[in-house]
Amino acid sequence: MADYKDLDAKVNQLCKQIVRMCTAAGSGHPSSALSLVHIVTALMYRLMRYEPANPWNAGADRLVLSEGHAVPVVYAAYCDLGGVVGTQMAPSELRFDDALTLRAADSVLDGHPNPAIGFPFFDSATGSLGQGLSTAAGLAAAARLDGIDKKIYCICGDGESREGQIWEAVDFIVDHKLTAVRAIFNCNGQAQSDYVSPQQSPEMLAGKLGACGFEVRIIDGHDWEAIFEALEAAPGEKPLAVVARTVKGWGVTELKQHTYHGKPLKADQVEAALAELGPEGEEGADVRVAQLQSPPAATRPARAGFAAGGLAEAAAAVGIADAVEAKMLSTRRAYGAALNVMGADDRIVALDGDVKNSTFALWFATNYPDRYFEARIAEQNMVSAAVGLAAAGKVPFVSSFGKFLTRAYDQIEMAAISSANIKLSGSHCGVSLAADGPSQMALSDLGFFRGLAHSHRSDGDPACRILLPSDAVSAFKLTELAANINGMCYTRTHRPDVPIIYDESQTFEVGGYKHLEDGEDVAIVASGYMVHVVREALAVLEEQAGLSAGLIDVYSLPLSEASTNEILQIGDDCRGQILVVEDNYVGGVYDEIAAAAAGSDFGVRVEGRVLRAIPKSARTPEETLALLELGVSDIVAATQKMFDQSE
Amino acid sequence: MADYKDLDAKVNQLCKQIVRMCTAAGSGHPSSALSLVHIVTALMYRLMRYEPANPWNAGADRLVLSEGHAVPVVYAAYCDLGGVVGTQMAPSELRFDDALTLRAADSVLDGHPNPAIGFPFFDSATGSLGQGLSTAAGLAAAARLDGIDKKIYCICGDGESREGQIWEAVDFIVDHKLTAVRAIFNCNGQAQSDYVSPQQSPEMLAGKLGACGFEVRIIDGHDWEAIFEALEAAPGEKPLAVVARTVKGWGVTELKQHTYHGKPLKADQVEAALAELGPEGEEGADVRVAQLQSPPAATRPARAGFAAGGLAEAAAAVGIADAVEAKMLSTRRAYGAALNVMGADDRIVALDGDVKNSTFALWFATNYPDRYFEARIAEQNMVSAAVGLAAAGKVPFVSSFGKFLTRAYDQIEMAAISSANIKLSGSHCGVSLAADGPSQMALSDLGFFRGLAHSHRSDGDPACRILLPSDAVSAFKLTELAANINGMCYTRTHRPDVPIIYDESQTFEVGGYKHLEDGEDVAIVASGYMVHVVREALAVLEEQAGLSAGLIDVYSLPLSEASTNEILQIGDDCRGQILVVEDNYVGGVYDEIAAAAAGSDFGVRVEGRVLRAIPKSARTPEETLALLELGVSDIVAATQKMFDQSE
Repeated sequence: MADYKDLDAKVNQLCKQIVRMCTAAGSGHPSSALSLVHIVTALMYRLMRYEPANPWNAGADRLVLSEGHAVPVVYAAYCDLGGVVGTQMAPSELRFDDALTLRAADSVLDGHPNPAIGFPFFDSATGSLGQGLSTAAGLAAAARLDGIDKKIYCICGDGESREGQIWEAVDFIVDHKLTAVRAIFNCNGQAQSDYVSPQQSPEMLAGKLGACGFEVRIIDGHDWEAIFEALEAAPGEKPLAVVARTVKGWGVTELKQHTYHGKPLKADQVEAALAELGPEGEEGADVRVAQLQSPPAATRPARAGFAAGGLAEAAAAVGIADAVEAKMLSTRRAYGAALNVMGADDRIVALDGDVKNSTFALWFATNYPDRYFEARIAEQNMVSAAVGLAAAGKVPFVSSFGKFLTRAYDQIEMAAISSANIKLSGSHCGVSLAADGPSQMALSDLGFFRGLAHSHRSDGDPACRILLPSDAVSAFKLTELAANINGMCYTRTHRPDVPIIYDESQTFEVGGYKHLEDGEDVAIVASGYMVHVVREALAVLEEQAGLSAGLIDVYSLPLSEASTNEILQIGDDCRGQILVVEDNYVGGVYDEIAAAAAGSDFGVRVEGRVLRAIPKSARTPEETLALLELGVSDIVAATQKMFDQSE
Repeated sequence: MADYKDLDAKVNQLCKQIVRMCTAAGSGHPSSALSLVHIVTALMYRLMRYEPANPWNAGADRLVLSEGHAVPVVYAAYCDLGGVVGTQMAPSELRFDDALTLRAADSVLDGHPNPAIGFPFFDSATGSLGQGLSTAAGLAAAARLDGIDKKIYCICGDGESREGQIWEAVDFIVDHKLTAVRAIFNCNGQAQSDYVSPQQSPEMLAGKLGACGFEVRIIDGHDWEAIFEALEAAPGEKPLAVVARTVKGWGVTELKQHTYHGKPLKADQVEAALAELGPEGEEGADVRVAQLQSPPAATRPARAGFAAGGLAEAAAAVGIADAVEAKMLSTRRAYGAALNVMGADDRIVALDGDVKNSTFALWFATNYPDRYFEARIAEQNMVSAAVGLAAAGKVPFVSSFGKFLTRAYDQIEMAAISSANIKLSGSHCGVSLAADGPSQMALSDLGFFRGLAHSHRSDGDPACRILLPSDAVSAFKLTELAANINGMCYTRTHRPDVPIIYDESQTFEVGGYKHLEDGEDVAIVASGYMVHVVREALAVLEEQAGLSAGLIDVYSLPLSEASTNEILQIGDDCRGQILVVEDNYVGGVYDEIAAAAAGSDFGVRVEGRVLRAIPKSARTPEETLALLELGVSDIVAATQKMFDQSE
């Protein structure tokens, strides 16, 4: 029988610090943190092979705290261990009492875990529940690719396990045999507003996990013997889940009450709580961090140096040379061709949600099966798993229909908070998908992503870059650009084959646009598929009305300041009239140009011909556009009207 | 042994029509449809108690086709049965060959099911996968409230069952004992890009469903005896799931090939397929729709007639009279008080995702437990279940932290496509939540919802109304307004207590705003919590700089045309300067005003002081706002700058 006196003393110290730090912050979740104190102490002081002094060590075990609100226990331990925070260029070491800065404006101990503000012990921001197990799966997948034998511990709450994403992650872990993941379910029986549902009882969770193909152990989460026995088990064929019964508010009677979710003790209650926890053990009891056993792998930075070469060669490699020669090719196929070429670089990985033959991630999947992770019809897990892969230095390309990525907007926002270097590709965007109808069309996507595009990370870059290819050349080059961008991108492709309009000598850069046609009367701004519809309208306008309209292809958001000013100048030169044409709801390019104009010294008028109705099916893109008043004749009429009112 | 000759003949007819209609459309999913032909025939010709001539009959059984792409089989049967489509005011009866209009611009047979365009047999739009079982649960919940003994059949695909939401729905059904739901899993073994994962095999699905508390039967989905035996089983304690092994492309060798997902036969392949299906049975074989057994319930329209009364009385009813007297109350508490009063009307139901003590749905939950559905930490299921409740005539109020509703944006968009009358309430929006950090803050929400707000349903109304209360009076009255609006609303509340600024005599209407302060130098537009921050800034501006800035509270989006013009006029009168202040990312009120200005004849300049950084924790709202350059002094400086440049 082992002696756990030193660990007991550590638990005593940490419990006291958890109580103190939450009261100091005036908020936080001490009761959830206390329920995990034995498990986290076992992990951070004994089981995990890692260096608190070097949280960037690629060979180290990782801990994903999916129930992010319980983070005070991890902060308390990491401060005690002198854990390093900040950046590799500017690291700094925490001390025990830094835990008391919890949630302060100048502290890296945020309310919920977030590596992006300088807490590199964590790999992703958590706090929106149910996402951590997916991220753990991504970390495990990356470790296997890198040949690193490490464990990824992931702690999920019992209430949290109601989130469907947890079960998507479970299936993904079994499908891909990611046995490096050790899933720990913290069953303290209390959620925020009520007791946890019987559907998330330890027995039910164990039954479900077993039915999904996990090996499951139910333990007392405050029993050292049980914790070590379960978590030190040799990995078997099946992934391991440990379901731990715990006590919310462990050690402090007041905090065990159901009303204490997310609530600290008042200042005048602290003393009694500390007294109840008993006399201080020997401070700094002889607890050592386990020796790091696996050597750090040699890693290359995930940034820059990706090249897709020429479109013709890339197309030939996937058997679509004919289409390029005929200059008629969908943006999604060009995306797939670029991804396939760049796949030669083993930093690139790809994930797709059972539509790889539509997004054309298929070619990468065929040629690089080890680095392709079929995520099936489960987009939430797909995105969060990509966050894990990115945290481990991979460059994940994540594709699905743009509409289906909506399923993962919460996960995408958490990825943005994490500054995750993931490359999203939404296909079949806008209404040109036609016959399948609105359930398959991405129409709200620009409104959502543009918010992130105009929000900045701590390094000053946008939280997301939006790339809007209109033809195969721009799609090919923007996919290459996406790989080389430092951070999240969202590339928007379309279903139909469209003419190639760009010469391969053209270059494309973040924040850029192309001035495709000069005009004098009205400047039309478009992107993606609508560039082609507008080109048809331009011909009609010239022929039928003698109108000279210009055309600007906005292929990137946010627009740079220089691009914005140039576009407004072009509009100014076109009788001060800009018409923005889009086949998605408001919130995208139209708002970008209108807001710029409204805040500028140009007296440019901006109108939007955008999607203002919920679509229905029609059999061709042309019929669909006509139904939605976005067809060639609608654009012609709108342009004519703008011209007339400028007279 | 029963004789199924008539049904076999019907299957033959339907299979042929499925082949023909998809080829006519040039797209569609004949192979998925064929895999369901026996099950759907059994349901629509024998098992379901309903009237094809009156799909609005509230007493009838319902069918939710979660795997919406398989819809041709339902269309073919419904056309054969002379099913009625259109609206109750303008119904029309389908004929057998109307099936051939599949996906045409003027057909109600959309690519995926959608009641909103005139196919009332369905209750919700499907096609984005994994949502139907939740909607079925909502329909079952409504039926129980109405005392109607009906069954809700729901067909899910095997590949689709990878979506976590399916498992959220399963838990919800068990939690709430919704045994009226009959879940049918169509295991044809083929997904779009690959075979279905072993994790979704019939055996695994059955094991998982059993572990979740379902009674499960595995059957051959082309065996009449097995189908009827399983689906006619008397309801037990446990909800029933039928896992059916089926053949994708049943009856047509060509369509059984794996490459045929979502692909019709070419015109020249049709004849061979029809020949393979064998000689036509007797047309119109003696198959009768089962007698409708349960009487239609008396129902009241879900629209209008809701009243919340006075705030003081409502507050007293929930024990917060003091706060109203002190004129200091959070918008979320006022929301809860209004919901509680309106709960006296039994059309109102509520759902919340384990944060009812934060959103204050708690009061309704306490007083109307039968009409409160605790959805636990599973927001996707919560929203889709609300769609089912709304389809059955209830008026569901659905609350969570605004951030966590992001989890359900895909479901919300599907609800918008369905024209579902659901009332969403996101609490803790913007950055005033402070200490909890960005994982708990709704910041992208306005960008997403504004796209829907500017998109219109077939009746011309916006697909969503956004309500932005700034104080308790406006929150109270806007919650009442939400109940009375015909369609989806999103009400945005905040965490902190704020002063009451409106008198109860004020009225609030869709598309409206309030001109709170007159000014001469700059007009400031704000909403929600930021109205209070701007009020502080106004005082400083007047005192320190002698500047007279106006204040407009935009409490509703989309703004009406009249409101828009009035706001621009106010700006015009303030030296042509409007500053919009928001604590969310771009895409909301700032874009609304800027786009209006850019397209107007007013020469108004619009600038935005909005959130342009990913937040981190700070201990108070004031500290958080200061970190993000949205504090009082930042607004003062921005206003001063606008004034200076107007000089």
